[in-house]
Formats: sequence, C-alpha cells, structure tokens
Amino acid sequence: MAPPLHDAVLAYAALLGTWLGRGRGEYPTIEPFDYDETATFSHLGKPFLAYAQRSVAVSDGRPLHSESGYLRSPQPGRVELVVAQPTGVVEVDEGTFDGTTIRLTSTAVLRTGSAVEVTAITRVLTIDGDELRYELGMAAVGQPLTHHLAATLHRVGI
Amino acid sequence: MAPPLHDAVLAYAALLGTWLGRGRGEYPTIEPFDYDETATFSHLGKPFLAYAQRSVAVSDGRPLHSESGYLRSPQPGRVELVVAQPTGVVEVDEGTFDGTTIRLTSTAVLRTGSAVEVTAITRVLTIDGDELRYELGMAAVGQPLTHHLAATLHRVGI
Repeated sequence: MAPPLHDAVLAYAALLGTWLGRGRGEYPTIEPFDYDETATFSHLGKPFLAYAQRSVAVSDGRPLHSESGYLRSPQPGRVELVVAQPTGVVEVDEGTFDGTTIRLTSTAVLRTGSAVEVTAITRVLTIDGDELRYELGMAAVGQPLTHHLAATLHRVGI
Repeated sequence: MAPPLHDAVLAYAALLGTWLGRGRGEYPTIEPFDYDETATFSHLGKPFLAYAQRSVAVSDGRPLHSESGYLRSPQPGRVELVVAQPTGVVEVDEGTFDGTTIRLTSTAVLRTGSAVEVTAITRVLTIDGDELRYELGMAAVGQPLTHHLAATLHRVGI
C-alpha cells in the first residue's frame, strides 16, 4: 500500500500522477518542433516528489528529451527542484508556489565536459485540476534566457 | 520492441538491467546502517543510459535513499554521470571505464538552499558478470572525502 504523502509536500498533492500531452519547442538556434510528453510525479512517503518525463517527436515517435529529478518544499510556498538531464546537464531551481502556479528559476546549472552549454533555466508550471501546463525558458549556446518549451498535459492516472 | 543500444554506450551494455542487493552505509557523523537496494540501468536507443536507484532499510523496510540520472560516454573509456538526489543535491561526475571498473569523481556538486552540504562525491562501480559492486565516497557536513557506501548487487533482469 502506498504510504501517505509527507506533510512537507502535502501542498503539492495536485501534481501527483501520470500526465500525457503535447508540447512545442523552439529556440533561436533550431527549427521549431512538436512533441508528445509523458511526465510523472510520484512519492515514497518522504519529504519530496520524484519527477520524470520523456518526450517523443510527434512526426515519427523518435525519443527526444528525457529528464528526472526531485521536488522539495523547504517551507510553505517555497519550492526547490533538482533535475538531471541526459545531455549531461544538472539543474538546481528554486522558487515559489501559490497553490496554482510553481515558478522556478535556476540558481545553478552545471554540465559535464561534453555537454552543450546551458547557463540558466526557468520553469513555470500551472496546475488546473487534471490539466498541467508548463513553460520552460533557457539560456544556452550563447543565447540569453529565451522561451524554449510550452506544453499542456492531462492527468491519466495517479 | 526496444531500440538497439546506441554505439556511444555500447561498451556499457554490461550495466543494463535491474540489480538487487545489499549495502552498508557509514560516515563519521552517523551510525552505520544496512540497506537493500534496487538499481536500474536502461536505455532508449540514445547516446546515454538512464540510471535510477532506491534503497530501503534492512531493519524495517523504510525508504532510505533514492537518486536518478544519466550516464554518458563522450569518448571510449571516458564516462560522465549526472545525478539528482532528493536531498536537493545534484552531481556531475567524470571519470574512466576500463571495461570492468568505472571510476568517477565529481567535478561539481550543487545543492538547493535547504540541502545538507555535500561538496564532493566519488563512485567506483565494478561489473563482474551479473554482479555489480560499488563504493561511494563523500565529502559532506565539514568532513573530508570519506568512505560512505559499499554494496554488492546482482542482476535480476534486463
């Protein structure tokens, strides 16, 4: 039986589940692209949520991005997110949650020697019942912080 | 059907699968503890392996640690590992693989504002057929780099 959700992340219960939907990516250095995404937020009864996502190209189903990490809330209304990306990037984000919208800005982005340069990331997640919308901004490859991803997902299970 | 393993990580095929086993944790600031671990290395046909693990206490089965990340190999014999930890820590490791042993040292460890101070991590993974042994060292909470974890896992499936 699943353990109860830890008090520290009780306010984030609305994120729990598996989410499916479609997004669009764009960036000054690439052609825009559409993707299908599966994202999950789960928990083990400890003071964090586990987060993971995978996306595939709408055009041919080939795997595009994936990432995984953990969401913490050190105090009410404050959110922390740590994420590892298979491009060799790790991200530490901090921000706020007002009950509907999580707004995160990277405090640090680090990468391996072979990874593409990413220097800042912003994430805005809006929870609206069984709909989850997010936008992601990124400063990378010499570009300033610029809109990169937007998607609308729907909860398909908890 | 699973896609073929990407050439870039072909040399790491021996890591693929689900691994179960037992480990022991110790550190100058804590009581030693025994844990049961499940670790997985998987792939999507892209130039990385996805890594995730969970451990529970041997004594009472309560969840202890978990972490997730990605392994890359930018060139033969060179390994990169990025990991997110639910304690609010992210880790960028780089090192070598000689066909049997992966030796990684963190080039950077970052954390959220509420996380415990971790400043360096070393990981040594030795693959011996269906047995995977690892040791993890850590510099944290003012302690120098010190042995923290050792475990022996066995492959239970691919």
